[in-house]
Amino acid sequence: MTAPRLPLGSPQRRIVALGGGHGLAAALTALRLLTDHVTAVVTVADDGGSSGRLREEFDVLPPGDLRMALSALCDDSDWGHTWRDVLQHRFAGTGDLKGHALGNLMIVSIWELLGDTVQGLDLVGRLLGARGRVLPMAAEPLEIVAEIRGHDPERPDETVEVRGQHRVASSPGIVSSIGIIPTCPEPCHEALAGVREADWVMLGPGSWFTSVMPHLLVPALADALVTTPAKRLLNLNLEVHKGETRDFRAEDHLASFAANAPELRLDVVLADPSVVPDGASLRAAAAELGAELVVAPVAARGEPGVHDPLRLAAALRDVIS
Amino acid sequence: MTAPRLPLGSPQRRIVALGGGHGLAAALTALRLLTDHVTAVVTVADDGGSSGRLREEFDVLPPGDLRMALSALCDDSDWGHTWRDVLQHRFAGTGDLKGHALGNLMIVSIWELLGDTVQGLDLVGRLLGARGRVLPMAAEPLEIVAEIRGHDPERPDETVEVRGQHRVASSPGIVSSIGIIPTCPEPCHEALAGVREADWVMLGPGSWFTSVMPHLLVPALADALVTTPAKRLLNLNLEVHKGETRDFRAEDHLASFAANAPELRLDVVLADPSVVPDGASLRAAAAELGAELVVAPVAARGEPGVHDPLRLAAALRDVIS
Repeated sequence: MTAPRLPLGSPQRRIVALGGGHGLAAALTALRLLTDHVTAVVTVADDGGSSGRLREEFDVLPPGDLRMALSALCDDSDWGHTWRDVLQHRFAGTGDLKGHALGNLMIVSIWELLGDTVQGLDLVGRLLGARGRVLPMAAEPLEIVAEIRGHDPERPDETVEVRGQHRVASSPGIVSSIGIIPTCPEPCHEALAGVREADWVMLGPGSWFTSVMPHLLVPALADALVTTPAKRLLNLNLEVHKGETRDFRAEDHLASFAANAPELRLDVVLADPSVVPDGASLRAAAAELGAELVVAPVAARGEPGVHDPLRLAAALRDVIS
Repeated sequence: MTAPRLPLGSPQRRIVALGGGHGLAAALTALRLLTDHVTAVVTVADDGGSSGRLREEFDVLPPGDLRMALSALCDDSDWGHTWRDVLQHRFAGTGDLKGHALGNLMIVSIWELLGDTVQGLDLVGRLLGARGRVLPMAAEPLEIVAEIRGHDPERPDETVEVRGQHRVASSPGIVSSIGIIPTCPEPCHEALAGVREADWVMLGPGSWFTSVMPHLLVPALADALVTTPAKRLLNLNLEVHKGETRDFRAEDHLASFAANAPELRLDVVLADPSVVPDGASLRAAAAELGAELVVAPVAARGEPGVHDPLRLAAALRDVIS
């Protein structure tokens, strides 16, 4: 069975979604209902878990976020769902393979075999019957480096530099700024072309400093985002004040966005009502970025912090059409 | 591009090939040129390498010989070849994954996911566009146990029991008999049905004591081989006197065959001229098993001990038609 595409102004609409992890997967699950022309541009800074081990062992891009994005775009057929489940399968047990996702191992194998990152991801996409394409945000692995206040809970006012996405994301402190190493990585040219040729580009949702902001720090990608004729949308997170952005308000996200990408203007900021206690304040912050604030219910019921793909699809359809 | 099937009496001919490792892969590569109805029945006693590690870590059938058989049956298309190469890819490096074939990891993942050995192998077959089906010779992993004379080179006349396919296959001694543990394993019912419904069943080529003879020790499979109305063919090995069968002549293979399966009659013994220094003696040994000896060139040039798939296909076509 193939799922229907929801009625859109044009099912040929080219949409690029930038992010990583579960947030990007939720956005892609929504977008593939709207168009066959989705391109995911995925963070490649992960250094934890299965991806971190593979990155260390084989000096490759961390495959986990790419695998998750591909899985989210799988065809709604028995074949697509079966191979998605195979790719997402994690080895249990207590041995060498424990915790590895089969899809990560498959992607790394295909890269070794083909010697081409994008061709390899396209091949996995064909296996899944993926609606759309998954690309890395840079052609080489990145390291996140953050200034974090209170990283050591015993020194709450001290700001230190913390390196590595996993350590940054799990720090108890407050991120004051982030960067990437190398500072000017080799870009993924297919991703740049995707952004330039898009009708819409969308950032988020996702871990703010480790999945969403890093895209703006890749110079060639930031430049493409600034110069593309596409419209630009930011999907605000649901639990804006948790995790990496503890004590943040939605407005603080927009301020941090402006700080990391001063030249980048937005057209739409999409927010769930739960993160908009003060509509006027957030509307003003959005307007400073050139954007209209759209408030629409996009949260999943009973899963705090998680976007509901169908509600998100409905909200995005209304924005786009 | 899809490879043509060579002209056969009937491309609907159902052929079951029993064996393991590279020998079985060579037979399958030949047979898939002759018919779309190939069933491989594959040894599940391997305990070395990637298969041995997975067997130990997850208590599953060793996947390596199954993977190799599936790869041999892959479709002659870019898609089939690409996925065959992905399945056959082995991780290099120095870490936890070193030496694992991606296909082994994929098969184990699919088994964990589907909870059904045969369904899992069929799914991998569909990925490869495989011409035919790959089944295990038993539904549970087996251990080879052998009586070996001279296993300890310092005691050349002593016979000891050696356990494990890897140790048996790499022993410097001479195998005098083999068995399996458990002695009466749970059979694979699809494999039994395949043998019963076949037009031809073929044993070998392959490591004699660890890939070919074990099939005859699975009681239900041996019974199916004895009672099937199919014709039965034995592909003799090329270097009959090497490895596990050091100092053997071709006639000794047939004697060992008779010892392991006294009730099993053969219709054809196929041998390369290089292993038939004395045609009359081998013809007589074959006749004792009920078989006609067919001598035909099936060796690959420049690769000692390796069957040439095209020559083997030609010889098998002539026998079958």
